[in-house]
Amino acid sequence: MSEFQLHPQLAADTLHVAALPLCDVLLMNDANYPWLILVPRVPGASELLDLGESDRARLWREIDIASQALRELFAPDKLNIAALGNVVSQLHVHAIARFKNDAAWPKPVWGAQPAKPYSATEIAERVDTLRGVLA
Amino acid sequence: MSEFQLHPQLAADTLHVAALPLCDVLLMNDANYPWLILVPRVPGASELLDLGESDRARLWREIDIASQALRELFAPDKLNIAALGNVVSQLHVHAIARFKNDAAWPKPVWGAQPAKPYSATEIAERVDTLRGVLA
Repeated sequence: MSEFQLHPQLAADTLHVAALPLCDVLLMNDANYPWLILVPRVPGASELLDLGESDRARLWREIDIASQALRELFAPDKLNIAALGNVVSQLHVHAIARFKNDAAWPKPVWGAQPAKPYSATEIAERVDTLRGVLA
Repeated sequence: MSEFQLHPQLAADTLHVAALPLCDVLLMNDANYPWLILVPRVPGASELLDLGESDRARLWREIDIASQALRELFAPDKLNIAALGNVVSQLHVHAIARFKNDAAWPKPVWGAQPAKPYSATEIAERVDTLRGVLA
């Protein structure tokens, strides 16, 4: 089996925040929402069902970790957790902090608004804060 | 704690398919996509994090069961699994079989197309088939 490589689209849209035991945690470069993406470092995985049982259990744990970090840092009105992958089929799980006054509420975020890239200062600060909580 | 009651919006949009140990499995009345919704019978739950650890483990197992049923019956190009809840905050998980030629591909299904209700014959048949696989 080949080595794990992050899909170029995910690499282009995000910043690397942390490496948990199973997943890389990425921050979507879209200041509209605090938006994390978890990518299991499992070559060829596309569906949740493609993971073995212990990796699946680990993934759920890491989704909990990411969710708790978002809750602690941003106190969102709702968390959105989703594994879609219609565009990028490499398995990845969105964990998004949603607010009743955010750019897309109550719609899902995908395709709702053009991404609003963070400024250099904002992104450095946000990645630092997330690392502090996820580490 | 009060008793579990299915949210009226979910009740209106779906048909009851099966009761797994934790979740009611519902079929979205939208012939555009084979679309299941899992609702843990836990009063007051809104986020995945609101479930205790053993209920969370059970939910992941039941998501696997629903996913495998969709795969077996429909051989989709992609599964979409999501817990959003921006409109109906009662915890529920979507499990949707997606196809490259479906009505919304590659977009997410929510809000993409008006729902296309099944005919009475179609829905009876679909619910029966799903029950056979989920039972």
